[in-house]
Amino acid sequence: MAEPTSTKPYLLRAVYEWCVDNGYTPYISVLVDSETRVPMEHVRNGEIVLNIAADATSHLKMGNETIECTVRFSTVAKELRIPVAAVTAIYARENGRGMSFGLEEKEAAREAGGEGASAPTDPKDPPKIGRKPALRRIK
Amino acid sequence: MAEPTSTKPYLLRAVYEWCVDNGYTPYISVLVDSETRVPMEHVRNGEIVLNIAADATSHLKMGNETIECTVRFSTVAKELRIPVAAVTAIYARENGRGMSFGLEEKEAAREAGGEGASAPTDPKDPPKIGRKPALRRIK
Repeated sequence: MAEPTSTKPYLLRAVYEWCVDNGYTPYISVLVDSETRVPMEHVRNGEIVLNIAADATSHLKMGNETIECTVRFSTVAKELRIPVAAVTAIYARENGRGMSFGLEEKEAAREAGGEGASAPTDPKDPPKIGRKPALRRIK
Repeated sequence: MAEPTSTKPYLLRAVYEWCVDNGYTPYISVLVDSETRVPMEHVRNGEIVLNIAADATSHLKMGNETIECTVRFSTVAKELRIPVAAVTAIYARENGRGMSFGLEEKEAAREAGGEGASAPTDPKDPPKIGRKPALRRIK
């Protein structure tokens, strides 16, 4: 039988829908590399946090391989393209609840080189990212 | 702001969709109590494993509070009703991949009394169920 696809894009969509249904603003953290099309001026330590709420984006498409949308930064609309593998977390801005993902192979190489992903944290229960892939549900 | 709803039903639907898209058979493990309507003759150690694939059920509704469907056992169709809180895992029959959930309060009381949930295991990486709620993504 063929190797199964990753559950990750399904879980990203699930948390996105949970945010929307609860009136929260879905944020994603993304590790930036040459395959990631994001506004580089907003990248900090190799990472960018993006608001992907419906009122902050247009043409949002959360596919199994990539997340694509158009986002307005200041007065300029930019088309973003983010490989699902580069997403390290999705969470509600209002309370930090959501899900973080361990680094996959591509990002692990980057992690070894210096800056890595930082997941949203709950002060009472910081994420424990160990083996790859790993995740935790916040709440 | 109101307490957010649980992400669990969203994640259950996500893994279900992942199973369907990959041609796998989605199974759920359920802790049985007085609020769980399942065929008691198939309950083992307080738990039942159910095939909720489209070809094994009809009228499947995976809601935020309950999972409902009609399942045929032998020649008898039975309407099942499973609180989302009672679901301990959802996974693909073919490879055991999916997601397990820690016991929530109601089930924790039962756990203390004797039989508890057993999550699907990967021989290479058995689930570590500790604090509640906890989960792991298998793969």
